[in-house]
Amino acid sequence: MRGAVPAAGVMPTFQFLPFSALLGTLGFLCVVFTGFWSQHWRGGFAWDGSTKMFNWHPVFMVTGMLVLYGAAVLVYRVPSSWAGPKLPWKLLHAALTLAAFVLVVLGLVAVFGFHNAQGTPNMYSLHSWLGLAAVLLFSCQWLMGFAAFLLPWSPAWLRIIYKPIHVFFGSTILALAMAASISGINEKLFFSLTNKTVPYAKLPPEAWFANSLGMVILVFGLLVLWALATPAWKRPESESLEARQPLLH
Amino acid sequence: MRGAVPAAGVMPTFQFLPFSALLGTLGFLCVVFTGFWSQHWRGGFAWDGSTKMFNWHPVFMVTGMLVLYGAAVLVYRVPSSWAGPKLPWKLLHAALTLAAFVLVVLGLVAVFGFHNAQGTPNMYSLHSWLGLAAVLLFSCQWLMGFAAFLLPWSPAWLRIIYKPIHVFFGSTILALAMAASISGINEKLFFSLTNKTVPYAKLPPEAWFANSLGMVILVFGLLVLWALATPAWKRPESESLEARQPLLH
Repeated sequence: MRGAVPAAGVMPTFQFLPFSALLGTLGFLCVVFTGFWSQHWRGGFAWDGSTKMFNWHPVFMVTGMLVLYGAAVLVYRVPSSWAGPKLPWKLLHAALTLAAFVLVVLGLVAVFGFHNAQGTPNMYSLHSWLGLAAVLLFSCQWLMGFAAFLLPWSPAWLRIIYKPIHVFFGSTILALAMAASISGINEKLFFSLTNKTVPYAKLPPEAWFANSLGMVILVFGLLVLWALATPAWKRPESESLEARQPLLH
Repeated sequence: MRGAVPAAGVMPTFQFLPFSALLGTLGFLCVVFTGFWSQHWRGGFAWDGSTKMFNWHPVFMVTGMLVLYGAAVLVYRVPSSWAGPKLPWKLLHAALTLAAFVLVVLGLVAVFGFHNAQGTPNMYSLHSWLGLAAVLLFSCQWLMGFAAFLLPWSPAWLRIIYKPIHVFFGSTILALAMAASISGINEKLFFSLTNKTVPYAKLPPEAWFANSLGMVILVFGLLVLWALATPAWKRPESESLEARQPLLH
């Protein structure tokens, strides 16, 4: 398997598939822990403008912007994607990122709906600025990726020029999403655990749990970024071959 | 100049030196903006257990853990470091990271001293967990780097095995520091701009300013991470040559 070929000057390489099983487990934990936090300590879920509506926000964002997005960006690292036509893998990448994007939009609707129902201003915290930057870049990235790599009439020069930019922003958007998640969890704990008998500063079980969730999210994201950057796991391909596989050819 | 050699499948490369001038400017802005925030809106600086003592915390952390650290990790990307003996560059790298570490320790003393004087608990927020993780990894990284790459009796096999790990954690620590900075600024604004005539949610000038600082810090950090990952900017060297240049040989 190519994933096991050692490359000089980079991290000792592991097999990609066992590594992705670890990533899958961590991603699953991120989603389950976020859901459990909302369900067990924050009153559960509803779609009614209350904090129960807000509770969908972290669940949709972590599931879409981190876990599903993380799976989507690693599609071309699956060794079996390296042989045969690339189109099915492109469609899988586009479908997973689109599913991630739909969850992200639902996550935004949840928080804006909650804010508007409560009369709370939108988009003031650094968390919200970062998160919106991530979502806006993600939208541009998806549209540009679709136009350049899936539309049959997109010219070869566009694919060649845009591809490294697409790859660069793929990692950047994930890094922004990680910083937004961390600052979001931190800010939510300050909101929820203030003026209570057990404030955040006394580290009640909820604070331990959600802080740990933040650390797991960070480890998951860093491992995805590392997998993306590992040379031995990159799909070996020529740019010209890539340019010859648009959607309808 | 080697920095201009195009590498297939990566971001179009720029010249390293103009790029590092941009990074230097951004890093300088990060430090100046952090200082200005503390000076103009948070009451300035002192070393007396008050919030004026706390104000050193962001300044030392941003200067040490992001800007000086960012300069230190890019030392081997300077094209003139590629020819001739590596030892002076190793010493520069060790000195810059040590200076960064000293600032980080002062930054920790500032916040612990403030908390202790005020009777506030330490180490409860996700921000503090992330920040401590970054600082602990940074300490291990410096000690291991010194032992493996500067002590003359360190064996060649240790250098060869440890180097990719050192490189990997170099980027990881910076990513942790970025997430810690973002969550720290966000949390400080919630602390400082609550129960005032102009709360954070109304986006007073201080909130605009500090949110923008957070975005500049993020751009600076992402550009450093990108510079580290750019293949054309990596020092071309053989591991065996590297292993033959300990401190006293």
